[in-house]
This record gives sequence, C-alpha cells and structure tokens, in this order.
Amino acid sequence: MAIPYPHFIASEKTAVETGILVPPPSSSSVPPVILTQDELKKIAAYKAVEYVESGMVLGLGTGSTAKHAVDRIGELLSQGKLKNIIGIPTSKKTHEQAVSLGIPLSDLDSHPVVDLAIDGADEVDPHMNLVKGRGGSLLREKMVEGACKKFVVIVDETKLVKYVGASGLAMPVEIIPFCWKFTAIRLQKLFEYAGCSAKLRTSGENGDPFVTDNGNYIVDLYFKQDMGDLRAASDAILQLAGVVEHGMFLDMATTVIVAGELGVKVTDKKVVF
Amino acid sequence: MAIPYPHFIASEKTAVETGILVPPPSSSSVPPVILTQDELKKIAAYKAVEYVESGMVLGLGTGSTAKHAVDRIGELLSQGKLKNIIGIPTSKKTHEQAVSLGIPLSDLDSHPVVDLAIDGADEVDPHMNLVKGRGGSLLREKMVEGACKKFVVIVDETKLVKYVGASGLAMPVEIIPFCWKFTAIRLQKLFEYAGCSAKLRTSGENGDPFVTDNGNYIVDLYFKQDMGDLRAASDAILQLAGVVEHGMFLDMATTVIVAGELGVKVTDKKVVF
Repeated sequence: MAIPYPHFIASEKTAVETGILVPPPSSSSVPPVILTQDELKKIAAYKAVEYVESGMVLGLGTGSTAKHAVDRIGELLSQGKLKNIIGIPTSKKTHEQAVSLGIPLSDLDSHPVVDLAIDGADEVDPHMNLVKGRGGSLLREKMVEGACKKFVVIVDETKLVKYVGASGLAMPVEIIPFCWKFTAIRLQKLFEYAGCSAKLRTSGENGDPFVTDNGNYIVDLYFKQDMGDLRAASDAILQLAGVVEHGMFLDMATTVIVAGELGVKVTDKKVVF
Repeated sequence: MAIPYPHFIASEKTAVETGILVPPPSSSSVPPVILTQDELKKIAAYKAVEYVESGMVLGLGTGSTAKHAVDRIGELLSQGKLKNIIGIPTSKKTHEQAVSLGIPLSDLDSHPVVDLAIDGADEVDPHMNLVKGRGGSLLREKMVEGACKKFVVIVDETKLVKYVGASGLAMPVEIIPFCWKFTAIRLQKLFEYAGCSAKLRTSGENGDPFVTDNGNYIVDLYFKQDMGDLRAASDAILQLAGVVEHGMFLDMATTVIVAGELGVKVTDKKVVF
C-alpha cells in the first residue's frame, strides 16, 4: 500500500501503541508539513482502509472524508491488492462514486451482515458518540453502520467535541414532510432546557426544503448547552410521531481515527480520548 | 340531535353511569334488535360526536368507524347544529370525505393544538392501549391524535382484546422502502420470543407493496403471544433505523366508546373495563 504522508504514518504508529496524541518525531530529515483539512481527512481515510481485507462486505460512507476511503478502496481493487469486496453504499451519491470506481455493490437485503463500515462524522464526543447527517444521509448510514461488526469513523481533529452539539453546528433530524413545522416546533420544545433552536434545512437558491434520498425533510437542531443524557434524548426524539431518524450515533463506533496537525490517533471502543 | 337507535341509547345511558356493560331493559315495548357490525360502529360514532362543540378544532379519524363520525359532523354542520368547526384530517381519504361534506379543514402546522379527535381502532386492550393502522394511516393519525386534548376512540365490541396483538391480526409498522426486507427481518427478530412473524403489506392483484400517504411501506407484525412491556417494545421498534412509526397508541386514548350487542359503553381514561 502506498504511503501518502510518510511523516504522519511514522507518528501514527506511536499513537496506535500509546492511545494518545503524540507529536511527530522532530528530526531534521523530516521537515514539518502544514496540511490542509482535506489532506488530514485523506490521511484518516487511508489509515481506515488498512482495516479492509479481501472478501469483506463493506459499508461505504458518505461525505468528504468517506469519499477518500471509497476512492482508496477502488484504487486497491484496481491494483489487485484487494479482491472480492462487496460494497454497501450509504447514499445515492456514494453508490454513483462506487459504480464509477468499479466496486461491486449490493444492499442490506442481500447482505444483512456487514463486516466493516468506514465513514466520517460531523462530531465525535469523548465517549465515541457521533453526530452525523450534515450531508443528509443519516438514515441509510445508520441502517448500514448499525448492521456492522466493526465501524471505523474517520475525522480530522476539528470534529472532536466535549459534548454532542458543542460545535454549535447542526444535529440533524430526518422527518416526514407532512406538517413539518409542527414536528420542528415539538423538537425545539423537547430541548428548550438546552437552548435548542430548530431550522428546516433548505436547498438551492430558492429556499426549497432539502429532500433526503428517502423523500423526507431534515430539521437541524442547534444547541446552546449540553443536552445531557443522550440515550434519553434519542428515545424522546424517536417517540415523536413524524420523526424518522436523528443524527446521533450512540455506542455504534468501534474505532475512531483522528488526523490532526500532530499526527494520527486511533482509538478503539470504550477508550476515552 | 337525532337518535338513530333509541333501544341502544337507553342502555348506553346506564352504561355511562355504571361503567359496566349492561343489557338493554327488557320491555315488551322495545323488541330486541339484531345489529350488523357496521350499525354498531355507527352507534359508537354518533355517541362520540356528542362530545363535539361548536368552535372546536377536531381531529378527523380514518377507517370504516371514523367515517360515520365524519359523516355525522358534516350532517350537524349542514343543519346548523354545529358551527365554526375546523377539521384536521388524518389521511388523504378523510380529507376528501370532509371536503365533500363541506367541513372546513386545516392542518397541524396552522392548528398545533386539537381540542378533540375521534377515531376508530383495530384493537383496544384493558388499559386503553390501541392498535391502529390496519387502514394504513397510522402515522398521520398518531401525529394528530398525539396533539389532542381529548381523544375519543370508537369501536364495536369485536375490537376488545386481552393484550395487544391478541386478535391475531396485524400490528402495523411504517418503514422506509429502502432495504425493507432487512428492516422486516429485524422487526421479526425483535419479537421472536412472542412468536412474531413479519409480512410486507401488499396492494392490489399484482402484489406491489402498499404505499402510505407518506410514500412508505407497511410491515405487519403478527404475534402468537403477549409481547409484554409495551413501552419497552415501542422504544425498541422506534430505535431501529428504517422504522418510521408503529401502530401501538399507548396511553393516548382519553375515552373509549364500545358498541356491542348489549349496549354502548363509555370508559374514561384510567378506568379498566
């Protein structure tokens, strides 16, 4: 396998062993490299693809970070370094990307057990709970990643948060279009104590609602404070008729790979970083 | 208000007072009447419409029993006996019926608080938990009826069950079409202990999936035994990604009106019949 960023791979090995972020070795032979956010995403993605073995059924994530992983899997297949892979895409977009790369595809109906999924996340909290779905594919992602034996999450370090919602960015909820305002108001009221505001996601210049692959709308929730017990919050959201799914992925990730300025860190389930 | 079945209204008054089913008074002036199931549904529906007052926002149910109530509301409006009613229909079908009757309509976005809803049910257990949705409108019904101050359920006595699922008929679950087989299998496994079998609802002669007003599918669950804790069962179903809503209406009915061969019985919340 090609090593795109030898500087980082060196430090990453130390990170895997120690479980903590460590600076790269200061050596005059390895000058410091300033990486873009996209390059960091690519590093995390390439690291995750090292978990892929021939013969696996693979969940293929959606978004700018997961895209690098899917590209890399396609590359290794075309080089003959991986064989007999079956991909389960988590969105129509990823489906198209995988088809263009020649990755054989199937779905959960034919392959209800997935060996490994690789996907990005919008937020990762210290307990490896995730926020996903800012790209709008949260439902299919949750179905595929919930069916996985192993779920590797790949992020750059800007995605690490102290608590879910702490980035100030959206926690998306997929809802049915019927009476969406009513559902949005109920969602906002549910988390009034955490300073929640709910906003329908729009698409394009004319402000039409964004429509998911499943024909639904997305309401984005913004929090001013920690919402507290995430499992209780999840159940409360799902109990609202009109809600299809939310973007909190609780206790699902088995490994988180974080690429940052100081290296790559790999954290396995239940290890708090 | 016209009294369609004076024989039954007489016994119903006793039932309301005592809270138990009582036989009609045996008087030679009132000969026994053998009523069809549809006539029983109509009796319950007419009784429920007595709760309607001018100026109310009304949830309008869906199905063969609720249809009688909507007809009756339209009749009273046209006679001027009810005024300033706003109806919130729970399905496209009821919407059409209400329009044809001249009932002014709105939706939950404009009227998020509903004074009273009247609807049928497929099963009613001794704790007034319901199964609904054999007609396929469970999601909109749950949204509207969950927004009600008062929810009057109208059934004929064949709908009374010892526990949810005891009729041997379907407990419907609305799911997204994406990988529906996968979701159906997961639902069935969830209730393996209760002898559950899951079946996709089809429509028409060619066996195409039945499609809800929201563009989703319905998986019907059949139980051989009591599933036990209904709230836990509800949360477990809703936690499955791919599930939109289920047909158990727990702790939502405030009044149940049952029409049977022996009379009409009205039961208010928390009174076990």
